[in-house]
Amino acid sequence: MRFSYVSHLYCPKCSKNYSVDDKQNLCECGSPLLVSYDYKALKEEWTKEDLVHREADLWRYHELLPVKKEENIVSLGEGMTPLLTMSELGKEYGITNLLMKDEGLIPTGSFKARGSAVGVSKAKELGVEELAMPTNGNAGAAWSLYAARAGIKSHVVMPEDAPMITRQEVHVAGADLIVIDGLISDAGKLVKEAVDQYGWFDVSTLKEPYRIEGKKTMGLEIAEQLKWNLPDVILYPTGGGVGLIGIYKAFKELVELGWIEPEKLPRLVAVQAEGCAPIVKAFKEGKRDSEFWTDSTTAAFGINVPKALGDFLVLEAVYETNGCAVAVSDDTILTEQHHVAELEGAFICPEGAATFAAAKKLRIDGWIKEEESVICLNTGMGIKYPETVPMNVSVRSKTERL
Amino acid sequence: MRFSYVSHLYCPKCSKNYSVDDKQNLCECGSPLLVSYDYKALKEEWTKEDLVHREADLWRYHELLPVKKEENIVSLGEGMTPLLTMSELGKEYGITNLLMKDEGLIPTGSFKARGSAVGVSKAKELGVEELAMPTNGNAGAAWSLYAARAGIKSHVVMPEDAPMITRQEVHVAGADLIVIDGLISDAGKLVKEAVDQYGWFDVSTLKEPYRIEGKKTMGLEIAEQLKWNLPDVILYPTGGGVGLIGIYKAFKELVELGWIEPEKLPRLVAVQAEGCAPIVKAFKEGKRDSEFWTDSTTAAFGINVPKALGDFLVLEAVYETNGCAVAVSDDTILTEQHHVAELEGAFICPEGAATFAAAKKLRIDGWIKEEESVICLNTGMGIKYPETVPMNVSVRSKTERL
Repeated sequence: MRFSYVSHLYCPKCSKNYSVDDKQNLCECGSPLLVSYDYKALKEEWTKEDLVHREADLWRYHELLPVKKEENIVSLGEGMTPLLTMSELGKEYGITNLLMKDEGLIPTGSFKARGSAVGVSKAKELGVEELAMPTNGNAGAAWSLYAARAGIKSHVVMPEDAPMITRQEVHVAGADLIVIDGLISDAGKLVKEAVDQYGWFDVSTLKEPYRIEGKKTMGLEIAEQLKWNLPDVILYPTGGGVGLIGIYKAFKELVELGWIEPEKLPRLVAVQAEGCAPIVKAFKEGKRDSEFWTDSTTAAFGINVPKALGDFLVLEAVYETNGCAVAVSDDTILTEQHHVAELEGAFICPEGAATFAAAKKLRIDGWIKEEESVICLNTGMGIKYPETVPMNVSVRSKTERL
Repeated sequence: MRFSYVSHLYCPKCSKNYSVDDKQNLCECGSPLLVSYDYKALKEEWTKEDLVHREADLWRYHELLPVKKEENIVSLGEGMTPLLTMSELGKEYGITNLLMKDEGLIPTGSFKARGSAVGVSKAKELGVEELAMPTNGNAGAAWSLYAARAGIKSHVVMPEDAPMITRQEVHVAGADLIVIDGLISDAGKLVKEAVDQYGWFDVSTLKEPYRIEGKKTMGLEIAEQLKWNLPDVILYPTGGGVGLIGIYKAFKELVELGWIEPEKLPRLVAVQAEGCAPIVKAFKEGKRDSEFWTDSTTAAFGINVPKALGDFLVLEAVYETNGCAVAVSDDTILTEQHHVAELEGAFICPEGAATFAAAKKLRIDGWIKEEESVICLNTGMGIKYPETVPMNVSVRSKTERL
């Protein structure tokens, strides 16, 4: 048995191959690169039963992850997040089997930890000493902290509107934090110039190929947690869309290994905010790429991405699984965020709440049927977004009886 | 096999017994009550191997928890938090085998989730409809959210200085939040009056017996994660001290079951802040009870408890394991909080950081030896305490190159 069965990188657009032993960013043709494995050997040498005695973290799938040597793993205990039943909410929506995959229970309180754990580990394996990235907040926080653990220096460029707490996370990690008066697209331009000038490794979304491998473990875990019987529908809050691409890749790989049935793939739903819905627009128009969404705005800051580099991969995953793309309003997002807390006891982030608003909407439309099993993916903790719970509490005297 | 082997409640002071099938608070004599199990039957019918295939949450120990019926469990996926190696920090401190049990990776981002998961589940089993408690923030947040999941109404009284984010958590859960211009001791008085008047169930620290059962799972997990070979030293940030009492109870129960050796119990260290160190004072004076600490103050708000109801149990655990009690300054707490993030990539809470400051101090004093295995217990996420990371970042123009 090999620790990892990683074989090479390939371009999903022009099919060119690259080595996993050198630092790689985009393909020459401009497309993101994807990671391939020796599926034939894996199918022969790796079984579901091998997983039983392993630790409850994402490294339990190390054969299907890109890190070749165990000693390069940089871990803070990430993965195997809970898959919770949401029966009260399900009753209200009219969905008998409603579940939530809760990515709040992970280092840094956001699903970004998965991408950075695998990305930073592989960067360490490749000898990276300094990395740089633009971020809407949570990714920068996660990469800074994992990089600190790996002894890698990081440079993080963040819009001033990103969640305040993520500035603290980047700062406390000892990273170089740059806050700008612009959007993540502006931050991306500055990073691109800087990596060209200083030789830092660019770990922008999908510009390095390994973040997606971390994210795909959400799909692997969902499959294993449901004993390899996939749900009917998975709703995912879609900004850059890496998680959705990753989950789809995971399922295709599990089909390749013969661990799940190809005809049983869940319908994947890309959920966006009405104020920033380029994927939804492209889906409605039957297109395979999205257009830049001007003047984007939403309270769910993590999905404020006007044009995702991997839009074509997101749309492919949606089309190939007979899924859909749906936009929800900020009002319904914030309403469902409260609703999930009051009925189910989970204080989730607005991006996660968007998937519940979408599930409710799709159930009303009849696109989701009552008896279908449905997973809403909550990408992070509500406590990272205090401003989404406005409150006005007056301080009372300690001598006044209740 | 029974789901739970719980037998009865007993008073550690006057030895009076009580039923686990009625709502109970303190003993008639004023002491907290502890939970007892049918250890004889457990020893015959339950083995370590039974745990292997179970979910990675604290309910894996259901035989040694007080909830009798599985359907009464109220869970958000809590438990089996990571036990991380801290090798860089260990090198610096001169401790070869330094570990951190990270209670940030749990619902609500604080170890309080354990006590509330078990406490709320048992309250549900006993038919509680409304509960009330004073809180320094995190416990109130956790109990409110678990109570919401259980359909139980909660009333939470909090000092105005408690972490702001915990107000939002209580509010979003739909609980009745009361913020007062006093300390947790003042909040406790108001709760006492109100439960007498309205008949709410009082879930103040140690006033109901089940919170400690949730907290003891930290001890069970540490033992299992280390394959039933306990460390030499465990450092615990001590306010109310329930976790320390719980960990000690867990180890004694494991001895009773024959799963660990009695002579191998770790030395338990109660860590307090210099601005609020009643347990440390009592320990130095060789006393078995503490005195009320006037004008207490510390940046580690969760351990600002001037007089703990369970002080005598904390001191017993310290004395019986040849442990100690040690106070650290707020300066060293905040320094180590940054240090842990920069060297190990974990953004921990100030209470957790206090245990690292204490480990460093005890190593310098020679109380901890180089080759000893040492666990620092981090009780929550740093992101709940943004004010502990002051920063001054100027916003730059998006057109200015890096």
